[in-house]
Amino acid sequence: MDGISVEELQLATRNHGMPLEALRWDLTPIGLHYLLTHYDIPLVDADSWRLEVGGLVERPLAVTLDELRARPTVELTSTMECAGNGRARLSPHVVSQPWLSEAVGTAAWLGTPLGALLDEAGPTAGAAEVVLSGLDRGVEGGIAQSFERSLPLQETLDGDAILAWQMNGAPLPPQHGFPLRLVVPGWYGMANVKWLSRITVVDEPFGGYQQSRGYRLRLEEDEEGVPLTRMLPRALIAPPGVPEFLTRERTLAAGPCALEGRAWSGHAAIAAVEVSTDGGATWAEATLGEAPSRWAWRRFGFEWDAPPGRYDLCCRAGDEAGNVQPLEPRWNVGGYANNAVQRVVVNVE
Amino acid sequence: MDGISVEELQLATRNHGMPLEALRWDLTPIGLHYLLTHYDIPLVDADSWRLEVGGLVERPLAVTLDELRARPTVELTSTMECAGNGRARLSPHVVSQPWLSEAVGTAAWLGTPLGALLDEAGPTAGAAEVVLSGLDRGVEGGIAQSFERSLPLQETLDGDAILAWQMNGAPLPPQHGFPLRLVVPGWYGMANVKWLSRITVVDEPFGGYQQSRGYRLRLEEDEEGVPLTRMLPRALIAPPGVPEFLTRERTLAAGPCALEGRAWSGHAAIAAVEVSTDGGATWAEATLGEAPSRWAWRRFGFEWDAPPGRYDLCCRAGDEAGNVQPLEPRWNVGGYANNAVQRVVVNVE
Repeated sequence: MDGISVEELQLATRNHGMPLEALRWDLTPIGLHYLLTHYDIPLVDADSWRLEVGGLVERPLAVTLDELRARPTVELTSTMECAGNGRARLSPHVVSQPWLSEAVGTAAWLGTPLGALLDEAGPTAGAAEVVLSGLDRGVEGGIAQSFERSLPLQETLDGDAILAWQMNGAPLPPQHGFPLRLVVPGWYGMANVKWLSRITVVDEPFGGYQQSRGYRLRLEEDEEGVPLTRMLPRALIAPPGVPEFLTRERTLAAGPCALEGRAWSGHAAIAAVEVSTDGGATWAEATLGEAPSRWAWRRFGFEWDAPPGRYDLCCRAGDEAGNVQPLEPRWNVGGYANNAVQRVVVNVE
Repeated sequence: MDGISVEELQLATRNHGMPLEALRWDLTPIGLHYLLTHYDIPLVDADSWRLEVGGLVERPLAVTLDELRARPTVELTSTMECAGNGRARLSPHVVSQPWLSEAVGTAAWLGTPLGALLDEAGPTAGAAEVVLSGLDRGVEGGIAQSFERSLPLQETLDGDAILAWQMNGAPLPPQHGFPLRLVVPGWYGMANVKWLSRITVVDEPFGGYQQSRGYRLRLEEDEEGVPLTRMLPRALIAPPGVPEFLTRERTLAAGPCALEGRAWSGHAAIAAVEVSTDGGATWAEATLGEAPSRWAWRRFGFEWDAPPGRYDLCCRAGDEAGNVQPLEPRWNVGGYANNAVQRVVVNVE
């Protein structure tokens, strides 16, 4: 891997991944869930805050937090992953938030369905997309902007997306979007707009920076590409044994070792997880446990009788839509969606 | 700055600093407080967990969490900073957790005084130090170990250290030491042992890795050096305006701007904070606010009438013991205690 610049380090010390030992929990404790903040965490006064719904709708709305809380509520346990997870493993190097494999987390979100609120506003003929605008502001690609992304209208009407004000039973922490965020289960993190302030129904593809330039899959700089949508499958093992402080290489006592991890896909349910102890030369099937919900990661286990030696543990997930993790990274301009298999070096003594 | 290696990046994506906009809060919200985990976050069963007190004591103890909770309680609002804060600004490069300036946070800890518990155990004649042992295990400097640090006995008897089971009104999160951690106000983070399981009174200087090799101030590799203790003064400004995503350079509208920040020192109360808008060529005094407690950071403010241009904002704190922040970093082998002044680039338009 190439060296990381001071700019990338500034991002890496602000944002943070989920330490992989947290794969032991179905629900990621607050503070361990991955976090990417494009600009600054805004300070929002919940009393004066309103969610506006406008654009191509019959009945524009401006609703308070109490009014949202009075609507039907849904609890949604959802695994969320940054589209840039795995970016720092790509070569040539892609300059942005340098994630290795830890940009993930699972939370129980409480909120109200997005589709029902949009139905109430009533999209008019010609409505095609829904633009979600956050209160976080900054400059990116030379453009001053609020963070904004769009979703296809049909996805917002038929999908399971919610407007959430609670995370793991507590009010949203400031960094996860207080007072309200969108949670779009199965989609990469960029769709789950935080500090949500406005929903605008539009009749053409949204041209905002995060839709037309950021978060697009492109193999060449001048290619139009396609916006990132759903998470590709990924399995991660909680590294066994104990780590060396700097290298994070693991030391493990020889003998039976119960490997454990979690696997997810935004396209379909996880169909299988395989484990390799020889760097991907041979594979064996892991035992699948339950997922806390349709949209959350699924536990897997693998009984390993570890002989002394040095091992390169890997795991790979496949989903019911036929997607399987590749052994090697697939490079793209923005460094997105690199779901190449995880490798964990273990010294068994 | 030199490039950051993949090993350092592995640490930077696990551990995380406090985004500097969080300087707006007296108490850092959970999940934004800086966090450094040497090894893995251990999974602790609070029901079977005991705190053992032993070594050179009249009455060895083994106390449950409920027994600790039944003791006199103290709330302690304390600012905690990693001894390695500022390390990534040093040249030559020091390889370890690469902090810039964000490894800090302030929390309201609830617990019971350490001194009273030690009094109850009764240190015997010759007792000199108190060794605090955590449940987190790993390898460092080639040595398999639990995280362990010592404090001078007199410090533990006379000081304000507490054994804490709550943070900001909630049970300790796993990553902050559940079920019990030490909080030693005024000392760098390494003294605030997490996942505490044993307190051992000893009659000679503790020779454990984190005391005899790690966390020592040394100018040369083969020097004995001295253990890190209390935090040197530091002031940090919440960067004004809005950031560019990658460079974090700020853009601000010309006109009045209320700069705000926090300053702290583990040696004595903050005596003064100065602000410079020209990279340290000239300085003006900031207005000091209240500190939430003797051991917490103190708010400061500075009214800046910002004319268009490009500025290098700096701030520096001094404490009542006469310590003042230096303009340039002071290098040492471990990259500790670099409290050189912060610099924030702002483009006023």
